[in-house]
Amino acid sequence: MSNKKTPVRVYLNENELPKQWYNIQADMPNPIKPYLNPMTKELVQPQDLAPLFPMALIEQEMSTERYIDIPEEVLDKYKSFRYSPLVRAYGLEKAIGTTARIYYKYEGTNPSGSHKLNTAVPQAYYNKKEGIKRISTETGAGQWGTALSIACAMYGLECVVYMVRVSYDQKPYRKAVMQTYGATVYASPSKETNVGRSILEKDPNSLGSLGIAISEAVEDAVMREDTHYALGSVLNHVILHQTIIGLESLTQFEKMGDYPDMVIGCNGGGSNFSGCAFPFIKHKISGEKDTRFIAVEPAACPKLTKGKFTYDFGDTGKMAPITHMYTLGHDFIPAGIHAGGLRYHGDSALLSQLYHDGYVEAQAVHQTDVFKAAVTFAKAESILPAPESAHAIAVAISEANKCTEKGEDKAIFFNLSGHGHFDLTAYEAYNSGKLEDFEYTDAMLKQGLATVPEI
Amino acid sequence: MSNKKTPVRVYLNENELPKQWYNIQADMPNPIKPYLNPMTKELVQPQDLAPLFPMALIEQEMSTERYIDIPEEVLDKYKSFRYSPLVRAYGLEKAIGTTARIYYKYEGTNPSGSHKLNTAVPQAYYNKKEGIKRISTETGAGQWGTALSIACAMYGLECVVYMVRVSYDQKPYRKAVMQTYGATVYASPSKETNVGRSILEKDPNSLGSLGIAISEAVEDAVMREDTHYALGSVLNHVILHQTIIGLESLTQFEKMGDYPDMVIGCNGGGSNFSGCAFPFIKHKISGEKDTRFIAVEPAACPKLTKGKFTYDFGDTGKMAPITHMYTLGHDFIPAGIHAGGLRYHGDSALLSQLYHDGYVEAQAVHQTDVFKAAVTFAKAESILPAPESAHAIAVAISEANKCTEKGEDKAIFFNLSGHGHFDLTAYEAYNSGKLEDFEYTDAMLKQGLATVPEI
Repeated sequence: MSNKKTPVRVYLNENELPKQWYNIQADMPNPIKPYLNPMTKELVQPQDLAPLFPMALIEQEMSTERYIDIPEEVLDKYKSFRYSPLVRAYGLEKAIGTTARIYYKYEGTNPSGSHKLNTAVPQAYYNKKEGIKRISTETGAGQWGTALSIACAMYGLECVVYMVRVSYDQKPYRKAVMQTYGATVYASPSKETNVGRSILEKDPNSLGSLGIAISEAVEDAVMREDTHYALGSVLNHVILHQTIIGLESLTQFEKMGDYPDMVIGCNGGGSNFSGCAFPFIKHKISGEKDTRFIAVEPAACPKLTKGKFTYDFGDTGKMAPITHMYTLGHDFIPAGIHAGGLRYHGDSALLSQLYHDGYVEAQAVHQTDVFKAAVTFAKAESILPAPESAHAIAVAISEANKCTEKGEDKAIFFNLSGHGHFDLTAYEAYNSGKLEDFEYTDAMLKQGLATVPEI
Repeated sequence: MSNKKTPVRVYLNENELPKQWYNIQADMPNPIKPYLNPMTKELVQPQDLAPLFPMALIEQEMSTERYIDIPEEVLDKYKSFRYSPLVRAYGLEKAIGTTARIYYKYEGTNPSGSHKLNTAVPQAYYNKKEGIKRISTETGAGQWGTALSIACAMYGLECVVYMVRVSYDQKPYRKAVMQTYGATVYASPSKETNVGRSILEKDPNSLGSLGIAISEAVEDAVMREDTHYALGSVLNHVILHQTIIGLESLTQFEKMGDYPDMVIGCNGGGSNFSGCAFPFIKHKISGEKDTRFIAVEPAACPKLTKGKFTYDFGDTGKMAPITHMYTLGHDFIPAGIHAGGLRYHGDSALLSQLYHDGYVEAQAVHQTDVFKAAVTFAKAESILPAPESAHAIAVAISEANKCTEKGEDKAIFFNLSGHGHFDLTAYEAYNSGKLEDFEYTDAMLKQGLATVPEI
């Protein structure tokens, strides 16, 4: 066991919350390549994005300012829900008998149950300020749809969620949550949009997909003056907002009297990992610290470990900007793992570049190992983790075990991005020995990458 | 709107947590009447309870010491999960346009999602210390079973939960949570006990009841040397542990720079209301303060407002001690409202006595009004409340509206005892206009009270 004793948990008071977000674009050794217009393949101009996003968010998307002020009105909301502790995982350390020190930041205490609310709130705020009345979005597993519903309720905005049909049918509880906060939830494909109607004409029983739902939400926003679109991950401004996690963690580690040797996070569209890691990566880029950063992805959707670093479409419908990133191909549909939030074919441009440049490592883990780690964690630390977050736990445990073998006393830090209260079908399957695992094959890789455009 | 500005929320640091529980038995103007043995109707002696509880808890049950030390080992656990804020409900105040100040203590941030963990932990601790290996209990809605599963996992104890068959079938997710923490969950009536087997012989399709489940859990504990029984409400030692809520709130109100004019809580077996209210009632008994205390019960189970103050059995199976309390009769089975935690025919002896002596008021509210209040609260404060907790919200709102009518600037405080993440069938029913309401009739009262024993 590590001899270094720290408090069990550290909270921040209202007045200790960060007042600015951190923009890693100011410090990256190699900048990201710009977005391309999906129709023309020309460089995207700010005005191209204006039908979808308020100008303040478009400016953040393109900005290279190092710190960007959090508006007072957003800070007030952060004060109301950001009671996110940094916890020393004494219970887990004991359960696995490690020489390492393990810490986690818990993002599941807010009403949405995950880190998604950190960006939903400023997105709703900037839209409200620009006179927008209504926000459309898509949701798969439902964490993002829930967060945006809550944020829209805060600011009196209408919220329209296109929810993948198979989730809509299988997860009536998630739908009930969003509706309770006042959102309108459509099963996608729906009769509300041209995209939806044309798909339903061909296949009235379509189960839908995230790609279709994105296309519907984008069309909804483009067709209506009073409506904008919101995305829950991938984009630079989303990651900017999520740096609140890492910035708080830096302060909390100071109060703990420690600093992480490893920072670990699960990786879907990149916002959870990046939001937690980027404020620490700043110290690595500057040469102050030599921390390891590990992005954890499902073995069923291994974009960083198996994908290609290239320009690709962000969505199946080819309506979103073409992004330079790690991708498995925009037509690749990952297996139905329970970590729905990690089933995205591509990745954040920022994270992709930093991975490419060697600042970040990646590991792919199997669903059965993830749930084994989740249950170990739940018993030891009392919190039931989201399947997505449990990817980070699995690697934190395996890295801690490596420390133990070498007798090393390292500080391992991971982001516990949310709770698993709405993922209990998955736990039920695991408890009863019925959880499936999924392999990602070379044939899948070849087939997926064949759809990547030549640019 | 109230002109008095306070912080949005107040947290306590680890070192600010109370180090003792408060025992109101030291300060009650009229003591409670003692428990009677259900078989002999003689006074219950400590050794009568020894097959069920560790001696430390039996001593707490009978104690009249004003403050009882929280063991260091329990305090360590409290430090790990008691990040329970006192929140100024600015959002709700604005939504209903009130002149009152509204505050709530939020007990849903811990991993069990409700206040139940506050007593599950010390109960598991004292049992562990006495060499017990296994704890049996019953659960209806599942909050208590979840809390005890987590506490048993903390101390490496086996946990056996008899879950009412109808809940077992209708709430597979609750079962999955308990199993993930390592608990064994039986549908009750089960084949594990004589009581269960005899009921199944007569009716193989029995849906079960809380009364049957209690009898099974008690039998399980009595028949095995290594096993004790644990109860999640009603008893004095349970309420003692729950005073952590009110004690913390007192400190938090000091930091807020305010003091409540009203304290409101929902009331099932009494532990949530009492745990929050008793440390404040101390100041009313002493004459220092003139706060109003309002216990809120469902109109479908109105023990305080319609029941009789008398000796009655604590359970349908007549195995638990006979208690002097407000009761609707131990054979009364309340309608299937969604606030499962409030469906108990009787009440805490302590709370019953204080209600009888005029220190506490009671109000009964209808299920449809409760959910209307719950949705108003969710939209305004972002937290999805448990149906039980929403009873307190409904009365807080109606009392705030009365203040507004009179132009009064009063401080209203309620305990938000848990979140509603596992109660979404109820929200779904409400959202789709299918939520039923239930009336409690004079005929029910007459029929229920007919079963009360003559003592």
